[in-house]
Amino acid sequence: MRAVRLTAWKTFPTLEEVERPEPGPGEVLLKVAGSGACHSDVSLFHDFDESTGVSGLTPPYTLGHETSGWVEAVGAGVTGFTPGDAYLVYGPTGCGHCRACVQGAETYCENAATLPYQGIGLGRDGGMAEYVTVPAAHLVPLGDADPVAAAPLADAALTPYHAIRLALPQLNKGGAFALVIGLGGLGQIAVQILRALTGATIIATDTKEDAMTLAAERGAVTVAGGEGQAARIRELTGGRGVDAVFDFVGATPTIALAQQSVAVGGRIQVVGIAGGTVSWNFFTTPYESVITNSYWGTVADLHDVVEMYRAGQITPDVQRFSLDDALEAYHLLQDGKLSARAVIVPHA
Amino acid sequence: MRAVRLTAWKTFPTLEEVERPEPGPGEVLLKVAGSGACHSDVSLFHDFDESTGVSGLTPPYTLGHETSGWVEAVGAGVTGFTPGDAYLVYGPTGCGHCRACVQGAETYCENAATLPYQGIGLGRDGGMAEYVTVPAAHLVPLGDADPVAAAPLADAALTPYHAIRLALPQLNKGGAFALVIGLGGLGQIAVQILRALTGATIIATDTKEDAMTLAAERGAVTVAGGEGQAARIRELTGGRGVDAVFDFVGATPTIALAQQSVAVGGRIQVVGIAGGTVSWNFFTTPYESVITNSYWGTVADLHDVVEMYRAGQITPDVQRFSLDDALEAYHLLQDGKLSARAVIVPHA
Amino acid sequence: MRAVRLTAWKTFPTLEEVERPEPGPGEVLLKVAGSGACHSDVSLFHDFDESTGVSGLTPPYTLGHETSGWVEAVGAGVTGFTPGDAYLVYGPTGCGHCRACVQGAETYCENAATLPYQGIGLGRDGGMAEYVTVPAAHLVPLGDADPVAAAPLADAALTPYHAIRLALPQLNKGGAFALVIGLGGLGQIAVQILRALTGATIIATDTKEDAMTLAAERGAVTVAGGEGQAARIRELTGGRGVDAVFDFVGATPTIALAQQSVAVGGRIQVVGIAGGTVSWNFFTTPYESVITNSYWGTVADLHDVVEMYRAGQITPDVQRFSLDDALEAYHLLQDGKLSARAVIVPHA
Amino acid sequence: MRAVRLTAWKTFPTLEEVERPEPGPGEVLLKVAGSGACHSDVSLFHDFDESTGVSGLTPPYTLGHETSGWVEAVGAGVTGFTPGDAYLVYGPTGCGHCRACVQGAETYCENAATLPYQGIGLGRDGGMAEYVTVPAAHLVPLGDADPVAAAPLADAALTPYHAIRLALPQLNKGGAFALVIGLGGLGQIAVQILRALTGATIIATDTKEDAMTLAAERGAVTVAGGEGQAARIRELTGGRGVDAVFDFVGATPTIALAQQSVAVGGRIQVVGIAGGTVSWNFFTTPYESVITNSYWGTVADLHDVVEMYRAGQITPDVQRFSLDDALEAYHLLQDGKLSARAVIVPHA
Repeated sequence: MRAVRLTAWKTFPTLEEVERPEPGPGEVLLKVAGSGACHSDVSLFHDFDESTGVSGLTPPYTLGHETSGWVEAVGAGVTGFTPGDAYLVYGPTGCGHCRACVQGAETYCENAATLPYQGIGLGRDGGMAEYVTVPAAHLVPLGDADPVAAAPLADAALTPYHAIRLALPQLNKGGAFALVIGLGGLGQIAVQILRALTGATIIATDTKEDAMTLAAERGAVTVAGGEGQAARIRELTGGRGVDAVFDFVGATPTIALAQQSVAVGGRIQVVGIAGGTVSWNFFTTPYESVITNSYWGTVADLHDVVEMYRAGQITPDVQRFSLDDALEAYHLLQDGKLSARAVIVPHA
Repeated sequence: MRAVRLTAWKTFPTLEEVERPEPGPGEVLLKVAGSGACHSDVSLFHDFDESTGVSGLTPPYTLGHETSGWVEAVGAGVTGFTPGDAYLVYGPTGCGHCRACVQGAETYCENAATLPYQGIGLGRDGGMAEYVTVPAAHLVPLGDADPVAAAPLADAALTPYHAIRLALPQLNKGGAFALVIGLGGLGQIAVQILRALTGATIIATDTKEDAMTLAAERGAVTVAGGEGQAARIRELTGGRGVDAVFDFVGATPTIALAQQSVAVGGRIQVVGIAGGTVSWNFFTTPYESVITNSYWGTVADLHDVVEMYRAGQITPDVQRFSLDDALEAYHLLQDGKLSARAVIVPHA
Repeated sequence: MRAVRLTAWKTFPTLEEVERPEPGPGEVLLKVAGSGACHSDVSLFHDFDESTGVSGLTPPYTLGHETSGWVEAVGAGVTGFTPGDAYLVYGPTGCGHCRACVQGAETYCENAATLPYQGIGLGRDGGMAEYVTVPAAHLVPLGDADPVAAAPLADAALTPYHAIRLALPQLNKGGAFALVIGLGGLGQIAVQILRALTGATIIATDTKEDAMTLAAERGAVTVAGGEGQAARIRELTGGRGVDAVFDFVGATPTIALAQQSVAVGGRIQVVGIAGGTVSWNFFTTPYESVITNSYWGTVADLHDVVEMYRAGQITPDVQRFSLDDALEAYHLLQDGKLSARAVIVPHA
Repeated sequence: MRAVRLTAWKTFPTLEEVERPEPGPGEVLLKVAGSGACHSDVSLFHDFDESTGVSGLTPPYTLGHETSGWVEAVGAGVTGFTPGDAYLVYGPTGCGHCRACVQGAETYCENAATLPYQGIGLGRDGGMAEYVTVPAAHLVPLGDADPVAAAPLADAALTPYHAIRLALPQLNKGGAFALVIGLGGLGQIAVQILRALTGATIIATDTKEDAMTLAAERGAVTVAGGEGQAARIRELTGGRGVDAVFDFVGATPTIALAQQSVAVGGRIQVVGIAGGTVSWNFFTTPYESVITNSYWGTVADLHDVVEMYRAGQITPDVQRFSLDDALEAYHLLQDGKLSARAVIVPHA
């Protein structure tokens, strides 16, 4: 079968012919419906190498950590799956038996440093291929919902969903305000999730006009950047500040904006990995407001995400590419020429 | 000034001329904008007497526990209020210094039995008059929102809001289901609150066709009563059951319906006071589902409710009556001939 | 190897020679350190049969759902275990991929009805044998703590821990009160867990004098049964009632005692499966108090339980029996002649 | 009567003869039992002036924001108090009718900037006098517990209690670890509260040997400062880090220690107001760990604190001074020569 492979550090992916995998014990073989191309893939082939120090990501392997597909076969010991049924794949892989993993938070596996790979498509062969094998416990049933558009949910929806779930105690009340910074793939879905799960007024900001317009259509109040932005945001809240900020950029200025905008008792969730550094001081921090980070999400979260997708509450913006055009999709992504998530569709 | 008075037990209210009150220390005098006529008022003049054993409700006093108005004057020690500003009134009155009261839960005052009255319009003169005095801490600012339509929020929205807030941990996730039983004034507002604050599929039921239609327009999936109702509800949830049930009737069959419909880990909030009795048994109860009751709400809840009203998320169905027609409103209410909340408007 | 087998319904267990099992994919073979004899085993061989309708429990199989042991070998795909290391076994077994199972709540597996067995020692061969195989994710590391005394923790501590964890929001404050009804194996450990994790005054009751004495030594305030018991409990709380009740009996009178004792906003956790039925009515229920049930616990809970055991916060009362004396242990248990948990030690 | 007065900025307090106050409407006159001398009083007469910008603290007024006393008389509209009964005083004063105040969080009053004073003993006459007037809602009944030793609870216990309550979700499980930095008055009580309310292993550190010894006697594991301190703390936790850090210093090095010590999902509560600044970065922050600040506590918290005091779970370390020796107490405090909280006892 064909697969999009990361063959070496600092090397653009290639489309290769590889063996079709067999499902091992506890695994399911999926015929891939769709696999999303993510910005972090670009980091992987552009920025990372031995010196990054994440041995679990060492090439070669097939890319694709946002994958959906149909059950083709099951490995030893697996029951409860019907061939042809569509599933979405939970990407992170942990040891499976530590305290984090037994709650489905494989992202925070206590034994991560000892594992041979970090996730499906992240050290272990991923979904950008005709077939992929995954542990049975990583599958979330899609029912009769479109599996192709579902693929990006595995990261682009799971990540904001998880961050938003952590902030729901701050948002679940009349008169709440949320701020979404960065309106790319994850930010757009964050707006949709906030819209569905909370009654909060959603304030949104991005440097791209298109992204602002799209967020506004989805119910957000948009605030342009530039001088006085924090003051304009605070004014929208009647002076109190926002109850939860979701920063999908994570640069120093965006985190600082979050700090200037947050209310007493509010929550700043930094999700974007631009790596910005900010200062924290008792006297400049609104009382009992917290700042934290989060990474991807849990298996149970992905079940919730799929329920929202099936209920029409989340609609990812996707652009379909055949497997033949997969490398072209990565070129467009790398060059910032995509306005929607590229999903590779191997069996069009 | 004129006031609608409960003059004695088992006696229909009368419209009387009384002294305009003066605000005492810590109190504010409001010029009444609107005061809602509530079913519990009918109980008060129809069912209650000395034998009911709630001495704090003993007549005579002015009715009206759902009241809004404009600041007319303030008593000693009160600051921070501007004449003419509109406020909604929190009705329950506790001792003010017990553990419940200091958190704004005057409904659950630990010293309730020792107090001379239970609330504003409930033992103490209420809002069905030209003017009313209330403790300053019981006032929630309405800003420029219509104070007349706001009046019923003080009970008909506060009560479901409080019950729903208790159940938000069950509802805040993708794929949740809520069931609203009883679609009168409180039930209709419950549908609106659930719609605004959660992404849950709202299932609703009532014996009245009109009420069902109205709830459906507000986004609920309606399920008629009759044989197999619980099974039809469960089918809508994919077999799992509903995550939270709000029973605004509280009769034996409605609570039993709640028990048959609830999911593992779900929550049954009985709000209606029909006084039904049901059985509870370990083996017939879905694991970790809870059943509980609740009464009215807290002052902070009322702040939230007003935020939702100001944001257009709650729209009470109201029918306005002049003070001259107040008794007529109670007649219509008593006879079940109102399809919206009657609000008495003394200064039309 | 030898094993204590349930060979048929309504039949006392027998000690038989069986094949030593091999670990399948994803499994670990344990050399058994200890396996507890539980009251529910007696129900299994005494009360259950085809008509009970739990096909997953159909004999024959080896008993023992409270098991500890040392790693002897691992099956295909299992990494991260060192031969000789001691582990405690999580007993419940679900499908492994539903929404409940992916959070480690295999007790509430959504596909339970379709599974061939309910747990290790409950349909699937358990730990009352020289060796047992278990899924790797069901193992909790014991470090250097005594594995024999640890065995009963898998049920007798996990079950109360889970119930208590659900009630911690009610108990975590100054001035809280907890009530433990039934001071057998689970109740005694409940007292220890409450003592360690909360500052609550622990009120405890049982019909056996010894059990009361033991609970008192562990820090509980004991209250004898008989007339006025609920009033005496309420008096201890200054009239407010208890914030959380744990009923390890579950008979009608004990649940009724719980209802009479609970405070406004309190929580009744019925854990015991005596199957009592009580009435629930809005007017006789303290506001916002909840009644619920729970069953066993999650894998993460068992990690917590082991931490408490290793920290000396939980000490199970155990009585050791060799495998030769295992049937004798069941006889004593059946006849009510044990005052501590019988633990079968196959390799003394 | 005599009172310890702050008469002007940058001026040591003086003992003066003033009028005995009368209780206003809604107020209670207390005969003072005890009033604690707090470090923040020293800041008030040593560091603050017009330029500090907190107009609500402008002298002159009587000091003492940690006060207990016996009911002497009540003002208009106050019921439910019996002369001679002992109460502890909640110090913060807000507007009384904003969203924060109606929940008893007067510390976070939304209208604080418009108020004439910040608290009792903080702009408004406090308890370091023979008599003091306080709003009835600020009184917490002490029953028959010693009111003198209780006085410091109003700040030195309320502040850590509030911070700890916010962190209980992180601490309420088996195997939790807490870190207390700074073992002065608040830190010592923090150790006691953590000991009572959680099962966490309490790690404690201070630069003073005596304070470490005292904390150790109260059940803490002490860790000396110096190189490798964070590593030594992490080692105690088996490498995971601590679930909650309470920093009662708040200097840059102590907050940095908190950051180096916290676990994934942990919580850093900065309580001390040394005003240190630290850096926050996505990649150096353990996932989902939060950093926040908090100030004093709520009225309901103080009710909880008093329950713990009455149950013997909190024992403040106090040193009694007559009103004649009050200024001497402030001199000792200022010079760092007190090892316990100075409590002024006007009616010895």
